[in-house]
Amino acid sequence: MKGKRVLIINRGEIAIRVAKALNELGLVSVGVWTDNETEPPHLEFCQEWVHLAGNNNKETYLDIPKIMKLIDDYKIDGVHPGYGFLSENREFSEALAKKGVTFIGPNPTAVYKMGAKDISKQVAKEAGVPVVPGSTGEVPSVEEAIKLANDMGYPILLKAVAGGGGKGMRPCYSEEEIKANFAAVQREALSGFGYAGLLVEKYILNPHHIEVQILADKKGNVFHVFERECSVQRRHQKIIEEAPSPFIGTDEALRKSICETAVKCAKAVNYDSAGTVEFIMGEDKKFYFLEMNTRIQVEHPITEEITGVDLVANMIKAAFGEPLDFKTQDDIKIQGHAIELRICAEDPISMLPAPGKIVGFETTFPQGIRFDHCIYPKFTITPDFDPMIGKLIAKGFNREVALRKVKSALDGLIIDGIKTNIALHRVILNEENFVKGHYSTNYIGTVKPQEKVAAKEDIKAFMLKVAAIELNQAGGN
Amino acid sequence: MKGKRVLIINRGEIAIRVAKALNELGLVSVGVWTDNETEPPHLEFCQEWVHLAGNNNKETYLDIPKIMKLIDDYKIDGVHPGYGFLSENREFSEALAKKGVTFIGPNPTAVYKMGAKDISKQVAKEAGVPVVPGSTGEVPSVEEAIKLANDMGYPILLKAVAGGGGKGMRPCYSEEEIKANFAAVQREALSGFGYAGLLVEKYILNPHHIEVQILADKKGNVFHVFERECSVQRRHQKIIEEAPSPFIGTDEALRKSICETAVKCAKAVNYDSAGTVEFIMGEDKKFYFLEMNTRIQVEHPITEEITGVDLVANMIKAAFGEPLDFKTQDDIKIQGHAIELRICAEDPISMLPAPGKIVGFETTFPQGIRFDHCIYPKFTITPDFDPMIGKLIAKGFNREVALRKVKSALDGLIIDGIKTNIALHRVILNEENFVKGHYSTNYIGTVKPQEKVAAKEDIKAFMLKVAAIELNQAGGN
Repeated sequence: MKGKRVLIINRGEIAIRVAKALNELGLVSVGVWTDNETEPPHLEFCQEWVHLAGNNNKETYLDIPKIMKLIDDYKIDGVHPGYGFLSENREFSEALAKKGVTFIGPNPTAVYKMGAKDISKQVAKEAGVPVVPGSTGEVPSVEEAIKLANDMGYPILLKAVAGGGGKGMRPCYSEEEIKANFAAVQREALSGFGYAGLLVEKYILNPHHIEVQILADKKGNVFHVFERECSVQRRHQKIIEEAPSPFIGTDEALRKSICETAVKCAKAVNYDSAGTVEFIMGEDKKFYFLEMNTRIQVEHPITEEITGVDLVANMIKAAFGEPLDFKTQDDIKIQGHAIELRICAEDPISMLPAPGKIVGFETTFPQGIRFDHCIYPKFTITPDFDPMIGKLIAKGFNREVALRKVKSALDGLIIDGIKTNIALHRVILNEENFVKGHYSTNYIGTVKPQEKVAAKEDIKAFMLKVAAIELNQAGGN
Repeated sequence: MKGKRVLIINRGEIAIRVAKALNELGLVSVGVWTDNETEPPHLEFCQEWVHLAGNNNKETYLDIPKIMKLIDDYKIDGVHPGYGFLSENREFSEALAKKGVTFIGPNPTAVYKMGAKDISKQVAKEAGVPVVPGSTGEVPSVEEAIKLANDMGYPILLKAVAGGGGKGMRPCYSEEEIKANFAAVQREALSGFGYAGLLVEKYILNPHHIEVQILADKKGNVFHVFERECSVQRRHQKIIEEAPSPFIGTDEALRKSICETAVKCAKAVNYDSAGTVEFIMGEDKKFYFLEMNTRIQVEHPITEEITGVDLVANMIKAAFGEPLDFKTQDDIKIQGHAIELRICAEDPISMLPAPGKIVGFETTFPQGIRFDHCIYPKFTITPDFDPMIGKLIAKGFNREVALRKVKSALDGLIIDGIKTNIALHRVILNEENFVKGHYSTNYIGTVKPQEKVAAKEDIKAFMLKVAAIELNQAGGN
């Protein structure tokens, strides 16, 4: 494996993370830069730099033929895709396989089977893994809907076949409610999506997003590296992650069950790399397969912090057929608690991207902080890429200590010149339900921490106005 | 505890470490600067700065009346002494106690009892803790020496009562050798130290320096936080530390035994803070009490890395009567392996201090590295203080991974303008016996890694000379 030349087809903090692991393992890290990036910080961590010409992602990070040419030109032995871009693209991993270039990720069949939502659900079902119960297709009548609902238990969700984005759906808690709502949701579906057909699905109240880290080698050994709770989300995107899950808490039987179920999913597709099996878990602690991400995940550091397993290094070792750092499942244990805050260049109230130029950057962190980022003073955040610019990770002896550390770290993180979600994180970390670990994926929607940020900004603006008036009056005397 | 004002009577990396913990816990960190320090980097981490006037340690970090005045002037509630200076000074901790100022360390009696070598050995003996066997005082005759030796087993050491610094001693492996050497060592003692008296002590072959971290609160709860192996030493000073000990390895019974013995020592003096019980361990894995350090230790980070316990934060909590992060001994577990390299401003061959001005400082580390240091470009290292300027710490899933990480980190650590022991560390980390974990406190003395550094420097000098000649010849054409 040593001396192999690995191209990192990514940028930002994950390109840095991958380059670090490659260098440490004695491989040659080759980074790319494109025409719409000025001084990309990840290159500082790469041993070689190559130019990926183009002004947008389609012409660069997503352009398979162009990347294949780079691979030829620079005698590349392997490719790490990071996350996003081509990380879960079957065509890309197949093209690499054909060329005999190592894809640092799973085999193309696993990518394919877990890539399509309906296929992956079928795979899970066949492996005996629970998926969210529901009609197998359109439900023709109220009677049929009631029959299904009685079978799976209430509440259920009436859902437009053609719907999406959280629209065209209504929860029903009883036979009567189905009767009362069926026709109305049909009408809504017709007017909203042009098609009246409805599905019936089990409605999971206050659901938790819990995922299990998988690490597997090319010899059929599949391990789990425990779970992460990622229920704090905005626009269905995670912003805070924790490991282990506060909702699973000390229920070791449940932890074992969900982790072993994830291993079952991974084995069903002969998984052979780092990957993540995502579940939705209800208040009753029943969990259902959602999907599998066949790549390294943004939130992998919290797992590394509590287990001591270097996921990225092991992923690289697995890809080159080297043995993992451990031999049995029992070798991997949880120690302490870790929390990750995604630091994004976005408005903390609207939570919408807010690109711009960083003019100041300073950190003063307590012990136990890891900051995976791609920030430096004078770095310009462009709208071309994801607004996430860093991940602030704290490890503590327990959740209370980890919380204390991440709060202290947040106070010591100064990013000037752009809007960031730091103020939003500060509100959440001090909010009662979050502190207690009582939250589901409804958290942002029901607690609305952004309103507190807005109120604080209003007070700040008001105080500034008062100060200005006072200054004015003083000047007038 | 929150809001209490704590004076840090120290400097360098440990003042930074303490300030971080104070800030994180919501206390006010008050740092000092003296007249022989320019721009001390620890002040950046302190919330307030006070001036401790004076040009040398006697007038500053060791001047108790002057420090007591600062405490009055700046309304200080507590003091953290770091290590060295006044950290194990009974007079200082008693003066603070009288004033009602919290000393972040153990009670004065514990400091006193463990401070004097003979008293601490007596305390250990009475607590049933083994100390290195030997005569209780001067041995009057060859016959008496032989009798003692036969009792304790060979080899033994004939040692001048007045000796020191490794001089005036000779190991004897049999009755015959005692007979042959007794008079000779007496003569040596007389000529070397002016007194002929001899002691007999058990001679520990290839000894290991193994120490156990203690953490105790003010309510009588005493815990161990496992052991560290600190056998790589030069001039009786540690330069590389590991946790857990590779010599103890997987011998969990031995680990339990030495750790529980350390707890026994700590309990014997009603210990109530962070501290370390040091042992010497022979090839036969028998161990003997050496001393107890009643303060935070330089090498505390490796214990923090493998156990997840924040020793400094818990030490502060204990001092203010707050509960520790854990309740039972079983709450504390080892995960993975950690290695610390002491980075010193010293000549890597002579291992003697080499102060000077740093002109360049850069780091590119792999994941899993912690660098506790006080280095910044243009910082001047003066001969007034200890040459240690940083501690490079790696945590890995196992010893092999930790070694890989610390080697990679060392390659990414660039300190220009002064001599450092980085080259020496590089030789040791690649040396066969060290890689295997086969070393005792004789390591530097027998393996002599500094000779390899010297050879490399010779080659470098030779190559430069050749290059200069070639350049000269080319210029002559």
